[in-house]
Order: sequence, then C-alpha cells, then structure tokens
Amino acid sequence: MVTIPVVRNFLESNEEKAKELMDMFKKEGVVVLNLMSSPGAGKTSLLEKTISKLKEKWKIGVIEGDIQTTKDAERLNQHGIPTVQINTGGACHLDSGMIMSAVPEINLSLLDILFIENVGNLVCPAEFKVGEDHKVMILSVTEGEDKPSKYPLMFRESSVLIINKIDLLPYLDIDLDTIREEALKINPDLQIFPISCKTEEGLEDWYNWLQKEIVAKKR
Amino acid sequence: MVTIPVVRNFLESNEEKAKELMDMFKKEGVVVLNLMSSPGAGKTSLLEKTISKLKEKWKIGVIEGDIQTTKDAERLNQHGIPTVQINTGGACHLDSGMIMSAVPEINLSLLDILFIENVGNLVCPAEFKVGEDHKVMILSVTEGEDKPSKYPLMFRESSVLIINKIDLLPYLDIDLDTIREEALKINPDLQIFPISCKTEEGLEDWYNWLQKEIVAKKR
Repeated sequence: MVTIPVVRNFLESNEEKAKELMDMFKKEGVVVLNLMSSPGAGKTSLLEKTISKLKEKWKIGVIEGDIQTTKDAERLNQHGIPTVQINTGGACHLDSGMIMSAVPEINLSLLDILFIENVGNLVCPAEFKVGEDHKVMILSVTEGEDKPSKYPLMFRESSVLIINKIDLLPYLDIDLDTIREEALKINPDLQIFPISCKTEEGLEDWYNWLQKEIVAKKR
Repeated sequence: MVTIPVVRNFLESNEEKAKELMDMFKKEGVVVLNLMSSPGAGKTSLLEKTISKLKEKWKIGVIEGDIQTTKDAERLNQHGIPTVQINTGGACHLDSGMIMSAVPEINLSLLDILFIENVGNLVCPAEFKVGEDHKVMILSVTEGEDKPSKYPLMFRESSVLIINKIDLLPYLDIDLDTIREEALKINPDLQIFPISCKTEEGLEDWYNWLQKEIVAKKR
C-alpha cells in the first residue's frame, strides 16, 4: 500500500488529463470504474465483497481516495490486491491529476479491472472525470427517495446505480420502487442493482455486469 | 416561500461577509444554527420535529439550501414558518454571499432562531462560515463508526453532533459508544445528542439545549 499526498493545481485542465488516462487504460485493456456515494453508503463494503468473489478469476487493483486516513486501503489491502491510497488533504473529490500521480504505483498491464473509490460525497466527484469507463454510484436506502431529484448530476453522470442496504427496508418508511422510478426519471439509461452487502442479496447481478464489462474491453 | 438563484463569485471574501452577517444576527438577537450532514442523514426531519415542538413558544425561520428542487422548503413551509429556498445551481455548499441575498426575504427582527439547512455534504460546507452561532452536524448511525476520523473538519468545526436514526441500531453492526468516542477524539468539546426522529427518542435534550441558546442570546 502506498500513500500519496496531493497538492491540487486548479489551473491544470482536468478534462485533458482524463483523456490521457482513458487512452492509457484503453491501451492496457483495463476496465476502470469510478465509485461514488455519500459517506457510509457502502463503497468499501461493496469492494470487499467484489474482490473476495472475483479475485481468483480476474486481476483487480484499487485506487482509494480519502480526505484523510488510510482505513479503507487497509481494509482492502487485507485481500492481497494492489491498493494505492490517495489522501486529498481536504479536497472533496478525486481529479485526474491525482489519479495520474497514483497510476505509476500500479502495474496496469497486470490488471483486468481498476476500481477508483472516490471521496464520500454526492456532489463534487460527479464533476470530475478520472479516465473511467463508467461512473458507478451507490445509494443507501437509508438516504431516502428524494436523492435523485436533489442530486441530479451524480445520477445523470453514472452508468450504474447500486442501491445498497436493502436488508434495512423492513425498518424504514422507504420504497425501493420509488427510488428506482425517481432515478430513472433523471437518467433512463441507468443500470440499477438493488443489493445488500450484509446479506449478499442481489450481488450476483452486479458481478455478472462487471464480468461482461471486462470481457468486452478485452475484445 | 421564496426561491433565490445564486451565481457564486469566488473572488468575494466569504469570511468578511460572514462577519457582517454575524453582526446583523447579533443586533437582532437571533440565534443562527448552520445544519450540516451527508445527504439523507435527517436534517429536514429534525427541523420538522423541532418546528412542530417549539413554534408556539419561539419564532422560527429557515433558510433552505439545496443544489436543486424546493422539496425541503415545501416540507417546512407546511408548518407555517418563514422559509427561504436557496438553489445553489451546482455549488456543493452555502456561503455567506448566498445567505446575504436570502436575508432580506426574512424579517430578522421577528425571529428568535434561524436555521440554515446546508447542502447535504459532509465535506465542503464545513469550510464556509455563514454568520452562524454554531455549526450543528447530523450523522446517521447507518453511516458508520469511522466518519469522524475520515471527515475530521466537519466534526472539528461543529459545536453539536446529533446522532440520528438510533432506532436502526438493533439492525446494524454499529456501536453508538464507538461513534461517540471517535467523535470526541476529533473534538472533545462536542455536545452529542443521540436521537431518533422516527421514535422521538432523545429529542428533549436537543430542545433543551436549543432553548438555552435562545435565552442566552437575548440577555
């Protein structure tokens, strides 16, 4: 595990660097997913489940973004996969410059899939491309049904919406179908996977989607 | 209910305006609380409970910050109190300039307390003062025990930490005392109120703290 302190240069063009990163990832045939959510919606838990399930079959790497601490990277490092921690030192999102400085720490040619776990924030990360194939957002059912209309950019920019913690639905006044409808109003193309990292319900569909992406990128 | 579109001017000094606002609020003897949390932690629910309980005794106003939609302001407006909606149009936090443009829509001299409900975001709002007496943050127990160390600025800047949704604790692998300890490690002066807006457990302590603040400011 490597920790990289980041000094942000607001003048460098994020879009330009994102394009460079995309070319680099394409050349190496690595699927890159940018994972975004509110704090505590379950990004790291989903990664732990996914890595445990798929690491024998596919080569997985993670770039871990946090304002502070290396807690998430430590959790993932236990699974024996290459993990780079970026500490943004206050910045509320990852950008392409940060990913650019992390990439040399990972041997891309050895990977099938690279997860970029963004800072927990439902607003700012959606604005910054990091060379990803897809933005994947996670919403916890506890956050409520009104989040798609209140944070539309994140839902609009994402290809996949994972609705986590569905095991808590019996104890909440929240309807899964309503969340789904609200999300599709904002982005009709969203792939939606309702899951529970705790009970593992729904995870198979997510794994299948992921593996199709890996196979498609290798063609 | 009034909706104010905001164009942010990054060059104006937020601190300077916050000071002006603070003087204005002081002159009118209004307690001002800046409410912050992740999306869906329960800011609006807490306001609804608090307004229902205290509106006969104290005069309450709300400035409601959202990137988009007037949903929260509509919820609060039903309680018959003055509510101003600020739509930040993408900006991930409120700043003093936005509050400055909302204040003329509210008659401060008629108020005992003004709640400023910030954009749902555990990162950026903590950096921008808006003339408040206190920052009050809400953490949902579903967000996990590691949030104080991962988002330290918010916990450091707040005077009060409200831990919401404690009714869900029996269904989570999360310990309330651990959250409390982790929060106090970051900020030993935090006033902590564990509550459930659903069952109303713990709300009395919050109401008592609030009323003491109102009385103290009138002296």
